[in-house]
Amino acid sequence: MLLLHRAVVPGLRQAYRFKSTHSRLCIQACSTNDSFQPQCPSLAFSGYNSSTKRWRVMGTLLGLGAVLTYHDHRCRAAQESPHIYTREEVKAHSSLETRIWVTLGSEVFDVTEFVHLHPGGPSKLMLAAGGPLEPFWALYAVHNQSHIREILAQYKIGELSPEDKAPSTLKTSDPYADDPIRHPALKVNSQRPFNAEPPPELLTENYITPNPIFFTRNHLPVPNLDPNTYRLHIVGPPRGQSLSLSLDDLYQFPKHEITVTLQCAGNRRSEMNQLKEVRGLEWRAGAISTARWAGARLCDVLSKAGHQPCETEAHVCFEGLDSDPTGTAYGASIPLARAMDPEAEVLLAYEMNGQPLPRDHGFPVRVVVPGVVGARHVKWLGKVSVEPEESYSHWQRRDYKGFSPSVDWDTVDFDSAPSIQELPVQSAITEPKDGEMVESGEVIVKGYAWSGGGRAVIRVDVSLDGGLTWQVAELDGEKQRPRKAWAWQLWQLRASVPPGIKELNIVCKAVDDSYNVQPDTVAPIWNLRGVLSNAWHRVHVRVAP
Amino acid sequence: MLLLHRAVVPGLRQAYRFKSTHSRLCIQACSTNDSFQPQCPSLAFSGYNSSTKRWRVMGTLLGLGAVLTYHDHRCRAAQESPHIYTREEVKAHSSLETRIWVTLGSEVFDVTEFVHLHPGGPSKLMLAAGGPLEPFWALYAVHNQSHIREILAQYKIGELSPEDKAPSTLKTSDPYADDPIRHPALKVNSQRPFNAEPPPELLTENYITPNPIFFTRNHLPVPNLDPNTYRLHIVGPPRGQSLSLSLDDLYQFPKHEITVTLQCAGNRRSEMNQLKEVRGLEWRAGAISTARWAGARLCDVLSKAGHQPCETEAHVCFEGLDSDPTGTAYGASIPLARAMDPEAEVLLAYEMNGQPLPRDHGFPVRVVVPGVVGARHVKWLGKVSVEPEESYSHWQRRDYKGFSPSVDWDTVDFDSAPSIQELPVQSAITEPKDGEMVESGEVIVKGYAWSGGGRAVIRVDVSLDGGLTWQVAELDGEKQRPRKAWAWQLWQLRASVPPGIKELNIVCKAVDDSYNVQPDTVAPIWNLRGVLSNAWHRVHVRVAP
Repeated sequence: MLLLHRAVVPGLRQAYRFKSTHSRLCIQACSTNDSFQPQCPSLAFSGYNSSTKRWRVMGTLLGLGAVLTYHDHRCRAAQESPHIYTREEVKAHSSLETRIWVTLGSEVFDVTEFVHLHPGGPSKLMLAAGGPLEPFWALYAVHNQSHIREILAQYKIGELSPEDKAPSTLKTSDPYADDPIRHPALKVNSQRPFNAEPPPELLTENYITPNPIFFTRNHLPVPNLDPNTYRLHIVGPPRGQSLSLSLDDLYQFPKHEITVTLQCAGNRRSEMNQLKEVRGLEWRAGAISTARWAGARLCDVLSKAGHQPCETEAHVCFEGLDSDPTGTAYGASIPLARAMDPEAEVLLAYEMNGQPLPRDHGFPVRVVVPGVVGARHVKWLGKVSVEPEESYSHWQRRDYKGFSPSVDWDTVDFDSAPSIQELPVQSAITEPKDGEMVESGEVIVKGYAWSGGGRAVIRVDVSLDGGLTWQVAELDGEKQRPRKAWAWQLWQLRASVPPGIKELNIVCKAVDDSYNVQPDTVAPIWNLRGVLSNAWHRVHVRVAP
Repeated sequence: MLLLHRAVVPGLRQAYRFKSTHSRLCIQACSTNDSFQPQCPSLAFSGYNSSTKRWRVMGTLLGLGAVLTYHDHRCRAAQESPHIYTREEVKAHSSLETRIWVTLGSEVFDVTEFVHLHPGGPSKLMLAAGGPLEPFWALYAVHNQSHIREILAQYKIGELSPEDKAPSTLKTSDPYADDPIRHPALKVNSQRPFNAEPPPELLTENYITPNPIFFTRNHLPVPNLDPNTYRLHIVGPPRGQSLSLSLDDLYQFPKHEITVTLQCAGNRRSEMNQLKEVRGLEWRAGAISTARWAGARLCDVLSKAGHQPCETEAHVCFEGLDSDPTGTAYGASIPLARAMDPEAEVLLAYEMNGQPLPRDHGFPVRVVVPGVVGARHVKWLGKVSVEPEESYSHWQRRDYKGFSPSVDWDTVDFDSAPSIQELPVQSAITEPKDGEMVESGEVIVKGYAWSGGGRAVIRVDVSLDGGLTWQVAELDGEKQRPRKAWAWQLWQLRASVPPGIKELNIVCKAVDDSYNVQPDTVAPIWNLRGVLSNAWHRVHVRVAP
């Protein structure tokens, strides 16, 4: 499960020196601390061969905008005649103590010293320790590239014995084969797992994004759930009652319908990446969409189970029914105070724009947390529980956090930053497109603007000269309720283009009702995961003569 | 009551052409619409000469960072022998229809065409229409400057008749004579009304700002209220009961104590002013302070009067007991939803750091609205009512709002922007000071950081090279509760200064828990009133050889 990318060689040379405290801690945790199991699961692939279960596969955003190390010493690229090993021998090398071997085809590799460099994290690579890489590479198609094979080749220590060269007994069929069919207009950032955004000119064509082009952020293959047997498990408090809710049960709660914009923490990551490489999917400005969601309010369901708001800090943890080969589900959490606040309108949504949720968007039930980063809107929801701590999910604790530009993968301490919940104020230009030729005389600039936490966008300033002078755009969209401005504003500006002007540096910036503004430039907010990219959006166009 | 300033001449030449729709509307409203009375009061100075009442004087922030017009045509600066008028004749000229005359000493001026140019607003100048300027200039000492007299001279139309040259019968004694004595460490931005900030090095000396150096923002003279006769009037709803609460009555409500940072909307205005002149007090970075406040929760008091949260938008209006010559009080409002939310912890505070409120800070009772701009924390509180609309106070509707940098006094539409409530994320450097010489080897940088709406500051980044590279500062302060981070964080960074470096461009920027950040530069957030100045704070120091 090597997960590599050609471009970030120099940055990781450092990491090779085993300086990464985080990596070491995580590896240690794998073998000593059960509480870390969800992130660092063992290799017991329970149910792996079960015909009734699809492969539950490791999901990770790390699988995509990946990073490369170039392992320039201890190269084992065997020029000499190869050692021969049996599968049994390989299997015996599955920990740091015994060293970590893996196979690909008939070749055997000792990746011990690469483990902590693995861009997907040591725990992900440890899943394959002592066995074949193929089942994982089938999940993360990004591995199937020649330069990644080249890097792997440096760790080669031998070949499998002739009798073990037969394909692994592990299934390697495509776990994504059952993914739904997608709209061809979507700009795909990753096929497996599927991640895609609508093109900008379609994005702001409608205030409500049509379901087929709503941006899609999957961490794992899409589960194919039977609505008749689906159950949502609500864990009750000590003196309450746990609930196992069918869809019909959920329909019995008062139906609540609201318009909510969802945005991925990685929206506009590509702009950070252009400055200095980050890890993650190469989202442009389309990892944001707006829908009319309907469902039961989470506070109603939690109350039914006996939960109440409490004085001490607590968290509502969500588990998806999408999961990895070990059965570890996608997970996230939000503070209980938000979950129990009727004004926060957190939904267990079963409808999206008047239709049952599409499979890509969580059929049959997903969480919708207005004003909060998309990562907490858990799809294919299977379980809800109230815990004293945040979710132990990788995506809650080891991802979706913001850091100073000075923090790199050697120095990052994920515990030092809070998980992203409410997002900062954001806006982007959707028309004209960067590099486009526009007519002289007048230009129409269009875009969207949104802010987290229910804060309304009160103004969008647009500049045609790179930010020297500004004009106020016209806002257009559903009237937002005070403190519940969950949905975006679309905006446009008709501006005259003075004769003789050959190019325009169009910039937009939004202001929300706490008068927070977007930062001018991306470098000072750059962070290693490329999240929270909300600097002024800039588009350069030429003007037709 | 001309309110002028030498520097903004060119910008107002335009305005002279009567293009300002807003000004015209307001003048019209004065004579036709009773609902505008609080902003455009009549000239009936009730109680003006009463010996039991101090002069209730026009308070306005407009009285300070004022603006100049240079009236370059229709100049009446009489070279010829002067016309002679009686006081009766002057008095007959007190409306746009009759033209507007005023006197200063023995001179008579027709200021009809200046009214809409008056930086304090037409309504303020209209207060003096038909009479002498002296009582108002006594309040707004900024008028007593030679260049303002020069401007006034251009509107001169004659002299008072010899028998009317005696001083006006209106009292012109100093309405500020009874203001309290202040701490000498305070940096005074305006004596009348009193506005002052602590010096930066004292500001972050203590997490809790000592009362004597807590920044002071007064719009009017400080009332001298008798705690024994003080009553707070709470207007009840139709089926509730109005309350008239003595201090002892207020003490009967549960006492609630919280640490809250107050910040003026104009904090750091001087940085905007350096870029391009704005109207307002020249606050540096000290219009912010933190205290431990105790009092009754507003929600408890409102509930006692029979108020309840309501579905439709409503506002809680506050009136101070400081007021202008017409009896118009300082006023402001906040949304009812915030007022009734126990979690928002809005206080009717009677204690500040364990002491009764100092007179400068609202003795005996002020409002404290955690996370919200200082202007809503009404001091010397006299009346609380629940209204369907925001307060009609000048300071709610015609001030304390943010606009695009492109908006000037000709184009501003105050109705187009929401009143400032929650403030954006903020931070500033308090040590070293700008221009200081620091030792080589190591520099210690100190400052504060805060955000509105209960959002906690989660990180402060500091740069020594103008923002190219960043280090994370150490935060220090009371642990803040989730969603109730009402108080600031102090921070510091010990950073090595590489040998040979001759100067440092120190910059700080904060991030709050919605991951909002401060904008890089001040120009794109510049606004005509100089509020919301929260760009990166920058300090330039030299390094000792």
